[in-house]
Amino acid sequence: MQILQVEGSLVCTSRVEGMKHSVFRIVRDANGKRQVATDPVGAKPGNWVFLASGSAARYAAGDFEILTDLTIAGIIDEWPPGETIGAGS
Amino acid sequence: MQILQVEGSLVCTSRVEGMKHSVFRIVRDANGKRQVATDPVGAKPGNWVFLASGSAARYAAGDFEILTDLTIAGIIDEWPPGETIGAGS
Amino acid sequence: MQILQVEGSLVCTSRVEGMKHSVFRIVRDANGKRQVATDPVGAKPGNWVFLASGSAARYAAGDFEILTDLTIAGIIDEWPPGETIGAGS
Amino acid sequence: MQILQVEGSLVCTSRVEGMKHSVFRIVRDANGKRQVATDPVGAKPGNWVFLASGSAARYAAGDFEILTDLTIAGIIDEWPPGETIGAGS
Amino acid sequence: MQILQVEGSLVCTSRVEGMKHSVFRIVRDANGKRQVATDPVGAKPGNWVFLASGSAARYAAGDFEILTDLTIAGIIDEWPPGETIGAGS
Repeated sequence: MQILQVEGSLVCTSRVEGMKHSVFRIVRDANGKRQVATDPVGAKPGNWVFLASGSAARYAAGDFEILTDLTIAGIIDEWPPGETIGAGS
Repeated sequence: MQILQVEGSLVCTSRVEGMKHSVFRIVRDANGKRQVATDPVGAKPGNWVFLASGSAARYAAGDFEILTDLTIAGIIDEWPPGETIGAGS
Repeated sequence: MQILQVEGSLVCTSRVEGMKHSVFRIVRDANGKRQVATDPVGAKPGNWVFLASGSAARYAAGDFEILTDLTIAGIIDEWPPGETIGAGS
Repeated sequence: MQILQVEGSLVCTSRVEGMKHSVFRIVRDANGKRQVATDPVGAKPGNWVFLASGSAARYAAGDFEILTDLTIAGIIDEWPPGETIGAGS
Repeated sequence: MQILQVEGSLVCTSRVEGMKHSVFRIVRDANGKRQVATDPVGAKPGNWVFLASGSAARYAAGDFEILTDLTIAGIIDEWPPGETIGAGS
């Protein structure tokens, strides 16, 4: 599962029905490349998260019929490992 | 889900039956790399969209039997975030 | 869906049973990287095609039991867009 | 299947329900890029492992309902091939 | 489907049950990047093969319950095309 950082939320008023009332987050990798993920766990900007992709993303969204390919599966307590979040920059 | 920009439509008269009467868009990333996506939401050239890939793309196409691996799932209201579309270049 | 160019056919006498009597094409991207795709539409060397990957590739092959992960889904009438095939180089 | 090295475990107290009580490992490739994988085999830091991705990852996790896209499928006895682990650096 | 070259076999005594008695091969691309694939066709070191990935890999393994994401689907008779194997270096 990819490890990405939450940047913020995404505003999107025009979407396919299968997206329902999902919450979307913009997530980015270390190089700044951004993707859109559904978020059933309530991650906040700055959080490092790991994400389920592919068909697992639909299950992880809490409703198999949500048509996502990327879902936040958990918030990482500290990242990089060994460094407490909040202690650093 | 990938974030890409719509470039235009694709003309394709010879296709497998499973594509039915899908509308195809050419979409490209920041580096100019192009892909073909099915479009059930009516995106326009210049729109920034996010796309469902893999098996989710078939569901998102509105008909599970459309044989796509990439479907436009929503039009992003402003991109990059915080910049109103139409206000910039 | 990826956009690739057909280079030629592939000769392969030793294959798993699940491939049946599929026609295989060698396809390559702009950087020359080659892949193998099943071809139910009869594409010719030089054609630009778009291809379904993943589980959609099996459906697109016209028989879900063909064990491919990449199938030519359509031949693009003109590529790059706006340039008639045959008119350019 | 990818070949990656186990770096350590991941602490994650906030996760979607579908992850259940999975053990998570941080794994990295030769370039240092890290991912998160579920681990049903008990790999240790430093082990070289190969991993099932996609829908196979859910089956490999020992419970199809664990919502992972990457699972350690086996520990490689020696890596690189021909070099006994423990004999080198 | 990817085109890769077989490098050799992989010894792995600790694996998840879903791998059963599969034969594993180490395969590499032109850049030397290695992956692990299941091999139901009996490829030999040096052979150029094409491989089914994703869910097709499980079917191609000859048993849908083998938890692989990469399976050798066929041995290419000559590679690069037009060059008889054995005639070159």
